[in-house]
Amino acid sequence: MLVVMQEGATEEQVEAVIERMVEMGFDVHRSTGVIHTVLGGVGGKEEFDLAVFEVMDGVKEAHRIVSPYKLASRHFRPGGTVVKVGGVEFGGEQLVVVAGPAVVESREQIEATAAAGAKAGAHVLAAFCPRAASFQGLGEDGLRMLRDAAGRNGLLVASEVMDDSEIPMVSGYADILTVGAHHMQNYNLLRELGKQRKPVLLNRGISAAIEELLLSADYDVVLCERGIRTFETYTRYTMDISAIPIVKKLSHLPILADPSRGTGRRDKVAAMGRAAVAAGADGLVVEVHPNPDHAQSDGAQSLRFEQLEELMAQLRMMAPAVGRKL
Amino acid sequence: MLVVMQEGATEEQVEAVIERMVEMGFDVHRSTGVIHTVLGGVGGKEEFDLAVFEVMDGVKEAHRIVSPYKLASRHFRPGGTVVKVGGVEFGGEQLVVVAGPAVVESREQIEATAAAGAKAGAHVLAAFCPRAASFQGLGEDGLRMLRDAAGRNGLLVASEVMDDSEIPMVSGYADILTVGAHHMQNYNLLRELGKQRKPVLLNRGISAAIEELLLSADYDVVLCERGIRTFETYTRYTMDISAIPIVKKLSHLPILADPSRGTGRRDKVAAMGRAAVAAGADGLVVEVHPNPDHAQSDGAQSLRFEQLEELMAQLRMMAPAVGRKL
Amino acid sequence: MLVVMQEGATEEQVEAVIERMVEMGFDVHRSTGVIHTVLGGVGGKEEFDLAVFEVMDGVKEAHRIVSPYKLASRHFRPGGTVVKVGGVEFGGEQLVVVAGPAVVESREQIEATAAAGAKAGAHVLAAFCPRAASFQGLGEDGLRMLRDAAGRNGLLVASEVMDDSEIPMVSGYADILTVGAHHMQNYNLLRELGKQRKPVLLNRGISAAIEELLLSADYDVVLCERGIRTFETYTRYTMDISAIPIVKKLSHLPILADPSRGTGRRDKVAAMGRAAVAAGADGLVVEVHPNPDHAQSDGAQSLRFEQLEELMAQLRMMAPAVGRKL
Amino acid sequence: MLVVMQEGATEEQVEAVIERMVEMGFDVHRSTGVIHTVLGGVGGKEEFDLAVFEVMDGVKEAHRIVSPYKLASRHFRPGGTVVKVGGVEFGGEQLVVVAGPAVVESREQIEATAAAGAKAGAHVLAAFCPRAASFQGLGEDGLRMLRDAAGRNGLLVASEVMDDSEIPMVSGYADILTVGAHHMQNYNLLRELGKQRKPVLLNRGISAAIEELLLSADYDVVLCERGIRTFETYTRYTMDISAIPIVKKLSHLPILADPSRGTGRRDKVAAMGRAAVAAGADGLVVEVHPNPDHAQSDGAQSLRFEQLEELMAQLRMMAPAVGRKL
Repeated sequence: MLVVMQEGATEEQVEAVIERMVEMGFDVHRSTGVIHTVLGGVGGKEEFDLAVFEVMDGVKEAHRIVSPYKLASRHFRPGGTVVKVGGVEFGGEQLVVVAGPAVVESREQIEATAAAGAKAGAHVLAAFCPRAASFQGLGEDGLRMLRDAAGRNGLLVASEVMDDSEIPMVSGYADILTVGAHHMQNYNLLRELGKQRKPVLLNRGISAAIEELLLSADYDVVLCERGIRTFETYTRYTMDISAIPIVKKLSHLPILADPSRGTGRRDKVAAMGRAAVAAGADGLVVEVHPNPDHAQSDGAQSLRFEQLEELMAQLRMMAPAVGRKL
Repeated sequence: MLVVMQEGATEEQVEAVIERMVEMGFDVHRSTGVIHTVLGGVGGKEEFDLAVFEVMDGVKEAHRIVSPYKLASRHFRPGGTVVKVGGVEFGGEQLVVVAGPAVVESREQIEATAAAGAKAGAHVLAAFCPRAASFQGLGEDGLRMLRDAAGRNGLLVASEVMDDSEIPMVSGYADILTVGAHHMQNYNLLRELGKQRKPVLLNRGISAAIEELLLSADYDVVLCERGIRTFETYTRYTMDISAIPIVKKLSHLPILADPSRGTGRRDKVAAMGRAAVAAGADGLVVEVHPNPDHAQSDGAQSLRFEQLEELMAQLRMMAPAVGRKL
Repeated sequence: MLVVMQEGATEEQVEAVIERMVEMGFDVHRSTGVIHTVLGGVGGKEEFDLAVFEVMDGVKEAHRIVSPYKLASRHFRPGGTVVKVGGVEFGGEQLVVVAGPAVVESREQIEATAAAGAKAGAHVLAAFCPRAASFQGLGEDGLRMLRDAAGRNGLLVASEVMDDSEIPMVSGYADILTVGAHHMQNYNLLRELGKQRKPVLLNRGISAAIEELLLSADYDVVLCERGIRTFETYTRYTMDISAIPIVKKLSHLPILADPSRGTGRRDKVAAMGRAAVAAGADGLVVEVHPNPDHAQSDGAQSLRFEQLEELMAQLRMMAPAVGRKL
Repeated sequence: MLVVMQEGATEEQVEAVIERMVEMGFDVHRSTGVIHTVLGGVGGKEEFDLAVFEVMDGVKEAHRIVSPYKLASRHFRPGGTVVKVGGVEFGGEQLVVVAGPAVVESREQIEATAAAGAKAGAHVLAAFCPRAASFQGLGEDGLRMLRDAAGRNGLLVASEVMDDSEIPMVSGYADILTVGAHHMQNYNLLRELGKQRKPVLLNRGISAAIEELLLSADYDVVLCERGIRTFETYTRYTMDISAIPIVKKLSHLPILADPSRGTGRRDKVAAMGRAAVAAGADGLVVEVHPNPDHAQSDGAQSLRFEQLEELMAQLRMMAPAVGRKL
């Protein structure tokens, strides 16, 4: 870490900062310049609050030098990570498409969606909220229908966990466990997920900086960009497409994009899905429904089947331009 | 609700929107203007997604007219709500001050803090994370120490719940249950809290609009402004002081402000605490610690005891200018 | 316009609002519902401040129904506008690429850049700040060199005006006049530009909502997305790629994207340029320099010549997937 | 400056960075750590683009150490600056209140406003847009009326310049020249204002970081916080009250706050004006109008005369709590 002292900081102030750094286990190197004294700290605690130094008298600013996100850092695996599950590879040459409705509403609905997804070329069938004891969905019955429909159509299953108590049940049916944007910093949940074997699809929180997303990520996680909150109100969120090439540079982890949740509007899903792939995303998460205008949830941002097919065809044409295939 | 059709919307498009509104239980009133056709809907479902209409062909925009937050609406209790607990009134003439450390670290630490808080004139002793099974704090022992220290100094106790499973234990010691900013939209947790009797202190999420804060609030909740995320990076968050008079107008609920979490820097806490009270806040939440430079957590944003006293003295001088006392 | 009264608004309050609407020339239609009275206004002043109604007693909210941006509205020219200049068409099937350095530094620099741009397939040579009396660039000499270099390489010229006094001189050399993000709401400048014949390239301000961008646009303007300010600090701005399909729907005007200014980092330009085209942009503005590491300005966001060629090759491959050619 | 190299950066990469630093005039100190090599640069160019280093191969991050805003830095004048004009002191013990309408509409209007301002205890009469050749206001006649009304009521005059060509005319009538938020980064205008003698009131841009505000400020400038753009849409902007104590710490310059422009709503002006003073502002700018509901401009955010008096009375009560008088 580095602490830059203010112009005119007194010797006592410098000493107090050095003492605090030493207390935290840092070896301190002092460099006295014409204008500023700079204190470099090596070793020391991995997790500490920079603001502890920033509020000390005579301190101008403090910087962390070692990335706080160690596990997700590209340096950790320079070649990149491919997360493999049931024959599907996230982060490889192949673009991966995860498609499905917000809620399992009925056997007919999820069967039709699985069949349409498989026909269009998707790899994973996703549905959220198939939770027991929820007003949404059919609980464990929903999970069973999801699994059946996926199986019959050669698709993997992804479903969401919102609480550590849900992990065992959802794991019984899903190949990939999804963490929603609201839970990106639910460290209890993340810790429990880290203990099990299934890959996790981790959505970026709507007010999370890229660094915070990487801090929440463990080794075998697939990240997902799905919009941040900005002053622009035409769309519910603003998809931060630039997060995709940034994450690819900073981290070894695969990253998808979810243009359904990221825009909240069906008529913007295809454009933003194409943009994400063009920017280097490893695939997409897209909401699809047999009859979006009458969906129980998220209808406005769900594609019709023919819209999914059209998007897949466009992605197939574009993929070679970014060294991918679909 | 109101749906405004685009210029040149066809009769078929208008009919399709009317049909969808009727399906959702609305009585529809059609008003055909020179430029736009406007469809007004009365009755109908309380919860629905406006975007369902916004993505229909020929629709320009859709507006919800009835406030989505019914329980928190000022119209519901025009005179305002006073939340009373153990002789302390949130939302009355008296400013209420909640003070305490981030973590109960030891009996000595929490005793000293309780005594200093009581001496300075605070009403509630708060500490977060005294949870069992947590790396932070002492678990249930911490809660017991918190209760003891508060009792000996004539203070109430507030502590945080992060999971519905924690409610029974924390309720056994605390008079007020706190919901942190990360959990403002954790509806499972809010639903369970709504079933018990203790008042809840609900923190605004860092990316939550004021309307969303009010949507999360039940009848007997005390709200708390503690900063939103903006492009300004000098402070961790930007305290939205204007949220205070806005909430006072839109809602009947009391609102506090937390300048420790809202700024992340001890040297800004007093200025922002005074500002919140000047803008009409019903009180403050402030982090205090006997030795902030060595606190286990949140040290940089915790006041020293003498700083708390000084802030309280300033608030006492200012209070009459806003029709309050302390 | 529509004014929604609060629940329990008094008859006097309703009357006061009606009176104010009539004063502003609106015909008022009153609709009294069970909960809310809604007042619709037709005709009336085109420009007015909704807040005038929002602060009146008893008013819940006010909505403008007619789009404030008339000239830029898609309804005005449903087929879309193609801005033609010297054989180049902005908004047609052909993607248009505007390339150049931030500053004309020397005859050698601008000649090399023009030649490289032409070779890569760009259509317009742009350079900013070639202004007289500026510390940047060579003044009118710079403009002359720009024109010469463009002419010799079959390119058009774009250059920036920052003040109405600069319009005559810059018009003498440039085919397209650029308005920078800082000046998007400089209405003096926009008014003067509206009086001359050359097309204008209007950059979105970094804190401008899409609606505000459209409000600043006149008939024959080419818009340009180049990033908005958000909480994410890894890049200088966050490119709002979703603005591209939104503008295409709301407006008839062409829209480009500038990934150099939008990211501030050379290593993100190609990814974001591809994303913009994939989302439907009519072309790109890209900074290029013979030796970016030693450029007078904007070096970090300028491509090297071979990077421009590589980006153009990728765009050429992708173009058919979005119904374009390059 | 400091450049932190990535883990595993090669010796060639380190050498290339050193070479570039030396080229820019820096003396370079190299510190090779276990994980990172850090290069410190002393001396060198004052203005340079950090991103030049950030995009170099092997670079992790780059930091500027010397504040870019030299003139505005508190270190420059540790005791703070008092800007004195015609007996009024900005930055002294006395709170300064600047009040007036958006536009001079008539002799009667400005006379009534001046008299009401003086009676309430304001010090400066402000009106914007009294410009020649503008659709708003009466041009130079408006300036003359403003000057006359101020003179008769013992007030100073502040008025806005939007273009360097306006400086001579406005200076002929005004004691203080105002720069609006849109022009905070109009460096042409700021440079010309720096050459004349009158003090300047510089408004923060709605998307300007505090550091950028200080970069735009010259020696004898009075700053003004008037809201930043955030995701919260209830008010037009979000007043960043915390900018006030931050600017007081970082800079020697006085800072006012403008709750009229900062909120856009009359019913929030008093609360936010009190908050700004409680946070340490040196005074306020407030819009006032004899009949705000019928003002030509900014009516919704203008106080009525009696509201100004009430606010002044509250400020008078609060002032001693922050060591001020009014």
